[in-house]
Amino acid sequence: MSVYQATASAPVNIACIKYWGKRDTKLILPTNSSLSVTLDQDHLRSTTTSRADPSFTKDRLWLNGKEDEIKDGGRLSTCIAEMKRMRKELEDKNPNEPKLSAYKVHICSHNNFPTAAGLASSASGFAALVKSLAALYALPASPSQLSLIARQGSGSACRSLMGGFVAWEQGTSPDGSDSLAVQVATREHWADIHALICVVSDDKKGTSSTSGMQRTVETSPLLQHRIHNVVPQRMRDISAAIQKKDFDTFARITMQDSNQFHAVCLETDPPIFYMNDVSRAIIALIVEYNRVSVEAGGKLKAAYTFDAGPNAVIYAPKENVREIVNMIVKYFPQAEPFKDPFGLFGTAGVQGGIVAGFNTAVAKQFDVGAVKGLIHTRVGDGPRVLGAEEGLLGPDGLPKSTL
Amino acid sequence: MSVYQATASAPVNIACIKYWGKRDTKLILPTNSSLSVTLDQDHLRSTTTSRADPSFTKDRLWLNGKEDEIKDGGRLSTCIAEMKRMRKELEDKNPNEPKLSAYKVHICSHNNFPTAAGLASSASGFAALVKSLAALYALPASPSQLSLIARQGSGSACRSLMGGFVAWEQGTSPDGSDSLAVQVATREHWADIHALICVVSDDKKGTSSTSGMQRTVETSPLLQHRIHNVVPQRMRDISAAIQKKDFDTFARITMQDSNQFHAVCLETDPPIFYMNDVSRAIIALIVEYNRVSVEAGGKLKAAYTFDAGPNAVIYAPKENVREIVNMIVKYFPQAEPFKDPFGLFGTAGVQGGIVAGFNTAVAKQFDVGAVKGLIHTRVGDGPRVLGAEEGLLGPDGLPKSTL
Repeated sequence: MSVYQATASAPVNIACIKYWGKRDTKLILPTNSSLSVTLDQDHLRSTTTSRADPSFTKDRLWLNGKEDEIKDGGRLSTCIAEMKRMRKELEDKNPNEPKLSAYKVHICSHNNFPTAAGLASSASGFAALVKSLAALYALPASPSQLSLIARQGSGSACRSLMGGFVAWEQGTSPDGSDSLAVQVATREHWADIHALICVVSDDKKGTSSTSGMQRTVETSPLLQHRIHNVVPQRMRDISAAIQKKDFDTFARITMQDSNQFHAVCLETDPPIFYMNDVSRAIIALIVEYNRVSVEAGGKLKAAYTFDAGPNAVIYAPKENVREIVNMIVKYFPQAEPFKDPFGLFGTAGVQGGIVAGFNTAVAKQFDVGAVKGLIHTRVGDGPRVLGAEEGLLGPDGLPKSTL
Repeated sequence: MSVYQATASAPVNIACIKYWGKRDTKLILPTNSSLSVTLDQDHLRSTTTSRADPSFTKDRLWLNGKEDEIKDGGRLSTCIAEMKRMRKELEDKNPNEPKLSAYKVHICSHNNFPTAAGLASSASGFAALVKSLAALYALPASPSQLSLIARQGSGSACRSLMGGFVAWEQGTSPDGSDSLAVQVATREHWADIHALICVVSDDKKGTSSTSGMQRTVETSPLLQHRIHNVVPQRMRDISAAIQKKDFDTFARITMQDSNQFHAVCLETDPPIFYMNDVSRAIIALIVEYNRVSVEAGGKLKAAYTFDAGPNAVIYAPKENVREIVNMIVKYFPQAEPFKDPFGLFGTAGVQGGIVAGFNTAVAKQFDVGAVKGLIHTRVGDGPRVLGAEEGLLGPDGLPKSTL
């Protein structure tokens, strides 16, 4: 008998224009549009295998080797139900199709980056889930259509359904049918955009973004101004900058929007802090690094952005990454050697250092461990459907023991 | 022959509604009104002696024992010139008055708190300067009239011309004639308001408020919203709360406005950070301390506020200060015993501890020195004219050697 199974991987995305605030918490409809860069799955990805089988007695999910409960009415359950509904439509139109929508599914998902890295895995995770189910069900849905489903799992997941530079249009419809991801540009259009993720150690558990953003919606007097008067223009300007490969404008808007996002968090009652003293020091370094360039008649060479945690993501054209790694390592000594996926440093490895004219007093040198690790990656492609040999479920429909 | 000399002391003030941004940098006219609590001069004060003498060859100033240059066209020079102008008007009306306005002045000023404490001394300093010159010149000017002069020395100095709770009305006149301080309530009206200053250690020199606030005016998209749509209502609400001695509302607005001030700093390009991880931990403690009270059906018991630096000022009714000191000392062990000016702790001293139901995980315990010192004070009175025996200038018109 047939095995109905599909495996897909999906990328992480990091926003330049931040999503913060829902106008509908059930459908996950945002209060403003957002825009992100999809990162390369060669380095960071979620992989998910979905299987439908008449012998399964209930929908089950394993995440990084541990079974998770699929709560009725929860986000996971919503996504699975939506995918089954789309499959059912297909079956109704094509009576010869096997009735997979009536079978229970087993889903096994795995992230290739440790949870301790503090990178949100819900975006890549829900994107991989939706993509693997779409492959399993042989749905003719476009990435934008799939983004509508992934959005209901985790808002920012909708942006992981495409590669390159991706906008999540907030939409206006109360049913959410126009709140979806659209590709602003492919990775090939501007493949030169690299990213350095600085994994920052933190003493305390931060506020979850789900609860934090709604507290901001309820209590921040400045958020409404951001939503109505700031973000729409920034979306237009950064999209144009991407079309023109204008890094200077891209960087300026990215940093401004990160700052404004953290400003409305701080203005929330009680205030929410995601950045710490290490995050602040990284900002000071990038500001100084850019100042040296601009004062010499050049352009901005790097942009920082921070999500709902202390980690920095630094976007830069590839040619600047070597200088940036050297600078970060000088101020934040590393316990482990820099993994150098693009071969920037050769056998000598990272020496650490700063560019000429850099004011070293803008930050102090931190102890080993303040920045726990550095991940160098770049703009990447959208979800990939993988071969059967990469499946995460064994012949018995349970996770392979090697996971 | 006569000695024309006067000595005055003036208090520090700490704003609840923050001043941040000038619409006129020369006249020091603010972009929004502000409101502060005047702190008790018994604990923190600037003392200034001014003397006019025909033998003096130029205006001179000594600050904490060191002579400072009085720059032509500078803020100090402006204040002295304005005071001489008022004296001249008095002399013109009363021909029998000695012609002090034609004499040069020697001014000697002293703060009783160390500069290292990170408390802005410009407010108390300019208020004491203006008050001592007003006494020297026997001017019939009201505190509000004097506040117009002090404002031109340092904006927030205008609020140190009065005791109790003081508003700086931004005014609308281009010449600044209606941008002055008015007393919202006397200290006696609500003498129960105490303040605990937590002097926080910082690694780096922060951005000066003078340059920082104008960068915010130029680059923060949210500042205009704050100025036009947020502050006016907060000024009305906190003034009403002070009239009603409604600490709950007073505390809520004070914390919200501190947060919003730091939010617009963060949103400035490049961003300005004044609070550090210690400041954030103090916020977390006060938020939790208030949560315990509110969840038990009570009210807010304390309010934090932060100026352009990492120091926290905690406002609270006197009855709560003992608990607050215990909490702060538990998380921030002190090298020196707590100076206990109100005798809260008896001979055993501060033991450190938290209230029942407090979630200790909201902050980690810091090392000794993270909070360098604690100063307990309360709402205070306005500037005082002191007796001749408290003068800081010797018979030769130079600073006494004991300073």
